[in-house]
Amino acid sequence: MGLKSFVEVHPDSHFPLENLPYGVFKRSHCSEARPGVAIGDYVLDISAVASAGLFDGPFLKNCDCFNQPCLNKFVELGRPAWKEARATLQKLLSKNEPTLRDNANLRQQALVPMDKVQMLLPVAIGDYTDFYSSINHARNCGLMFRGPGEPIKPNWFHLPIAYHGRASSIVISGTDIIRPRGQDRPVGNSPPYFGPSRKMDFELELAAVVGPGNELGKHVNINEAADHIFGLVLMNDWSARDIQGWECIPLGPFIGKNFGTTISPWIVPLDSLEPFGCEAPMQNPPPLPYLTEKKPKNYDICLEVAIKPNGHEDSYVVSRSNYKHLYWTIPQQVAHHTINGCNLRPGDLLGSGTISGPEPNSYGSLLELTWNGQKPLSLGGETRTFLQDGDEVIISGFCKGDGYMVGFGTCSGKILPSPA
Amino acid sequence: MGLKSFVEVHPDSHFPLENLPYGVFKRSHCSEARPGVAIGDYVLDISAVASAGLFDGPFLKNCDCFNQPCLNKFVELGRPAWKEARATLQKLLSKNEPTLRDNANLRQQALVPMDKVQMLLPVAIGDYTDFYSSINHARNCGLMFRGPGEPIKPNWFHLPIAYHGRASSIVISGTDIIRPRGQDRPVGNSPPYFGPSRKMDFELELAAVVGPGNELGKHVNINEAADHIFGLVLMNDWSARDIQGWECIPLGPFIGKNFGTTISPWIVPLDSLEPFGCEAPMQNPPPLPYLTEKKPKNYDICLEVAIKPNGHEDSYVVSRSNYKHLYWTIPQQVAHHTINGCNLRPGDLLGSGTISGPEPNSYGSLLELTWNGQKPLSLGGETRTFLQDGDEVIISGFCKGDGYMVGFGTCSGKILPSPA
Repeated sequence: MGLKSFVEVHPDSHFPLENLPYGVFKRSHCSEARPGVAIGDYVLDISAVASAGLFDGPFLKNCDCFNQPCLNKFVELGRPAWKEARATLQKLLSKNEPTLRDNANLRQQALVPMDKVQMLLPVAIGDYTDFYSSINHARNCGLMFRGPGEPIKPNWFHLPIAYHGRASSIVISGTDIIRPRGQDRPVGNSPPYFGPSRKMDFELELAAVVGPGNELGKHVNINEAADHIFGLVLMNDWSARDIQGWECIPLGPFIGKNFGTTISPWIVPLDSLEPFGCEAPMQNPPPLPYLTEKKPKNYDICLEVAIKPNGHEDSYVVSRSNYKHLYWTIPQQVAHHTINGCNLRPGDLLGSGTISGPEPNSYGSLLELTWNGQKPLSLGGETRTFLQDGDEVIISGFCKGDGYMVGFGTCSGKILPSPA
Repeated sequence: MGLKSFVEVHPDSHFPLENLPYGVFKRSHCSEARPGVAIGDYVLDISAVASAGLFDGPFLKNCDCFNQPCLNKFVELGRPAWKEARATLQKLLSKNEPTLRDNANLRQQALVPMDKVQMLLPVAIGDYTDFYSSINHARNCGLMFRGPGEPIKPNWFHLPIAYHGRASSIVISGTDIIRPRGQDRPVGNSPPYFGPSRKMDFELELAAVVGPGNELGKHVNINEAADHIFGLVLMNDWSARDIQGWECIPLGPFIGKNFGTTISPWIVPLDSLEPFGCEAPMQNPPPLPYLTEKKPKNYDICLEVAIKPNGHEDSYVVSRSNYKHLYWTIPQQVAHHTINGCNLRPGDLLGSGTISGPEPNSYGSLLELTWNGQKPLSLGGETRTFLQDGDEVIISGFCKGDGYMVGFGTCSGKILPSPA
């Protein structure tokens, strides 16, 4: 049925009053970066709301957390402050609340058409961790590279496997991605291939944005872990499968991954996703006590990947997946990440890993969708095994409410050719 | 022979006028963090030197790069600015230069006894990469875990293998390290072990500090790569071998490493190490063109690891190694890291990987020194396979000049017990 805002929100919009995701935007090239929330086709400038003195609760009154070029200070404040901000903004934007609705000056200052702004990275990301929490993805990779004997290694069922990714090359949706150069496995006695990657791939992921961190040496209890997560963004963890395959023994992926990772601009708060909570998968063997939650929970988030080949008007959906397929939950990821005392900091990013569903058309990467290039996909008259130069990959995600959607918008990037 | 400073420098000091390594220090708990250089037993406060207007060259005159709580702004300026700073400071501290020598007020302000200051992390570290560039270390690990058939995988000889480490848990020398908890491989059908790591280890490393970065999408040419490196620090990449061994398939080390990494406070500039350049090892197979240097070079840096057990007066040397044993050079590491367009940023850290020499007493970890616990070491009447609670690990490093040393000081940390 949906809450009503005085700002027009189409029923298909990802950004109704129930969502209010947070991002950072610029009005023009030379203006300052400031936090905003998305409402319909508008961005509400939260720094203008704050300057007008409209945050008057105990956590945010006179707080400078919105007068910043990134959301780190705000997400660090924790859930009570987040709830206060959400309640204030939902009230301010609601149909029956005159404060902003009837103040033409303030509206003019604070509400900016979304198509007029430039979105930036919403947080300064200190560290970026990428998990490997989809059982279907793990099984598919194992089947392809190790065969049917033991596609998933035993450790996978006991801990949420992860590795550290590169923070410097995380870019905002819409940023072009240059095809990486690197080495591929040699054939026979030749030297290794060197040149542009011949197996450029996407990875469909969501990433959790850390709110309050933990002190080095202190772990986060699993039943308190959700309070360390502010919200989620879409993520494309671009991967050069050939480079990755040759380099990854024994220390894991490196330059096959660290040339670029794209995230969507809007952080959807966990509070907005609450109505879309669903049961997490049964875990067998049962996890160790430090990974055992009182109420394990996933989120029912529909995910879609489309490819728009160079020169085409249309994009073509290549995968439909869902976040609920993940085996390991976010609290389990946080509890495992910190059990050794590792410190998370506000703004850190925890990628889910590629989110593959059980069906072949729900796999989250071309590696899986084309079975390492053996089964090409057809895209509007063209075929694809891996990405070609000029291909744009567009990830979208949303939850379906009763008469409304809570969405993530899109996370997109286009492949440019390698330098000569 | 040594240059002469009016500040007394003992011939055994790591910090003569030839060195002038950079760090960041605080005079007292509540004073501001400021950059300094080490000279003998003193720290020269460079911000005081800058405030006195004594940097008058084209790069540093009126530059605020020293009025900062970290060295990122300075290291970003690049080699010409570094050379200007070094020349200015060497002149200012020399025996025959009256400017500082005869100005009691300025001396009082700018020269602080080293034992009166607290050292901090010298740079804000955006990303931390750890290489695996010692052939002896790679061979030892391969022999232990894969056997004599193919101890080193073929890819190792074609590219400098590396993985991304955790930036948030990098700490300054002297910080205690809490023994991590985590899982170990299950025995039979039991669930995995969970508890304090039973195989706590050190790793003897040096790490390069990145100066000017590179733009995302643009690689760094190998013959220009050295200009992107400001200097080196000692590093101990603490490792929980049991946790690491169980978690690392297929994505590499994660919580077995990310609970803590210690670096020494003084960044020794490459310019100070110049006299200690030496030939790099022959590489066979020859590296690909993007990894081929005109003049491959290593540095002759003596390295030592000592352990001081709890309650002991003395520490016991367990390893003597040398940086020159590394197979892959720093320019090769930089060229490989960026060949795919990955961007390095000022202050990023590039660890060498464990520096093991060819002889058993030159191995850079307890894993190798005790051959995975099979050959205990004797330490002043005690034995060690892996580290015990209360053990302090002290790494030191220096180059021997003619009548002087260019040293790194020490990089130390003590193991505290896991939380109950």
